[in-house]
Amino acid sequence: MRDFFSEVRNLQEKNNSILCIGLDPVQEKLPEHIRSDEHSFFRFNKEIIDATLDLVSCYKPNIAFYEARGLKGLESLKKTCDYIGDKVPILLDAKRGDIGHSSASYAKGIFEYYNAGATTVSPYLGYDSLTPFAQYTDRGIFVLALTSNEGVTDFQYLKTGDTMVYLKVAEKVQKWNDKFGNFGLVTGATHPDELAQVRELAPDLPFLIPGIGAQKGKIEPTLKYGVTKKGFKPIVVVARSIIYAGSDKDFGARAREAALNYKSLLET
Amino acid sequence: MRDFFSEVRNLQEKNNSILCIGLDPVQEKLPEHIRSDEHSFFRFNKEIIDATLDLVSCYKPNIAFYEARGLKGLESLKKTCDYIGDKVPILLDAKRGDIGHSSASYAKGIFEYYNAGATTVSPYLGYDSLTPFAQYTDRGIFVLALTSNEGVTDFQYLKTGDTMVYLKVAEKVQKWNDKFGNFGLVTGATHPDELAQVRELAPDLPFLIPGIGAQKGKIEPTLKYGVTKKGFKPIVVVARSIIYAGSDKDFGARAREAALNYKSLLET
Repeated sequence: MRDFFSEVRNLQEKNNSILCIGLDPVQEKLPEHIRSDEHSFFRFNKEIIDATLDLVSCYKPNIAFYEARGLKGLESLKKTCDYIGDKVPILLDAKRGDIGHSSASYAKGIFEYYNAGATTVSPYLGYDSLTPFAQYTDRGIFVLALTSNEGVTDFQYLKTGDTMVYLKVAEKVQKWNDKFGNFGLVTGATHPDELAQVRELAPDLPFLIPGIGAQKGKIEPTLKYGVTKKGFKPIVVVARSIIYAGSDKDFGARAREAALNYKSLLET
Repeated sequence: MRDFFSEVRNLQEKNNSILCIGLDPVQEKLPEHIRSDEHSFFRFNKEIIDATLDLVSCYKPNIAFYEARGLKGLESLKKTCDYIGDKVPILLDAKRGDIGHSSASYAKGIFEYYNAGATTVSPYLGYDSLTPFAQYTDRGIFVLALTSNEGVTDFQYLKTGDTMVYLKVAEKVQKWNDKFGNFGLVTGATHPDELAQVRELAPDLPFLIPGIGAQKGKIEPTLKYGVTKKGFKPIVVVARSIIYAGSDKDFGARAREAALNYKSLLET
């Protein structure tokens, strides 16, 4: 039985790295020589993976990029997941969330078909939309709390009582975690002050932190508040700044250079 | 150029029906004689569609059920969308929502690959997570406001100022609609009093209303508050109570009987 959090922790130690590379291929951005490949997304990912396997503790494909290309894209995603296999835990970023039996179907696809070790979910529909995911007890369920985009102010920042919606999410997920033990939170690195508040309310929850690379989030608070009470370090995602570091035949080597750079920036 | 809302309106009049059938196949629930078919989901949907085409104004496949079966499931979804073609508008229920460039990828998959006329989106990430969908101006974008599950109390019912989160969603989407003109709201029929409040704040927004069938929502308030200021009637979804009305070789005929029943219950 695999357990996502133990596997990540092992690799964080073994590779001395909290870096998680986002595998987010976009056809027009791929090096020209592989664009015409039938499985261009897989071929691209494979080279990135081969070049960075010893530098990461997690890979995070965002399923949106694969869905954009329909079945062909998703075939590349499946091949990518199969290729990574048990070498590195896969967090399939999907931000799903629906009523119970629909959420159960999403969870089945993510955890059984793609065999992902973890996923991201949206909190809007509440507890019974999240439990079908959490019932896969050896997988990680990262609930969106504070995202790294501008729209964060529309609903996440709404005041409720003496707190705010995103803090209410953190508080409730921390409570629900007592039952399941496999929840985490998505907390964008672009909002350093808020990271501290989320950590205070959710001392036990591992953080998935996007926004360090192209989105220019701050590294210091990420490292300071990213760690759980029990010492689980944050999973810090960099995507575009690594996978598109090069745009030519040497893109794998360029991605490795960029990954090495981020890995050492993130050393704790 | 197709326009989702005009097409639905045309069919609502032509077929005298505000019924939208949810195409949510689950392998174990299919009639036994088609379970072993390679494209069992498509074969199932095709018979439901053939039996109900003149009784509906919209079909709503929830992509969760197809994703549960991986590529094979999604191949059936693609075949289903192609089969429906321009005959009836398709609302692909996906509840997506991500930061800008990821949302754009989701929108591309839904509107260009599956060629859906409309979709559902989750509001949690705010304005810039919704605009990549809304930019497809001939398609309909239904934002989750009030869902039909128990977890509605966790975040949607949070008080904020003198209002609540789900009402804030309604209010903001109504405002954003001034720019795009193609937003709607998902408002569960299981909460009749709240339907009235949402309608007051969002007079222009078409409602997608689930929860009438298996979830036992109330029909009367759905009809009363479902209509927009300009007279656009609600899109009322029934799934399981129709598609699983029969479980034998005559399941198409049984689905038709059930659809006829709901269609007349919903006549306005």
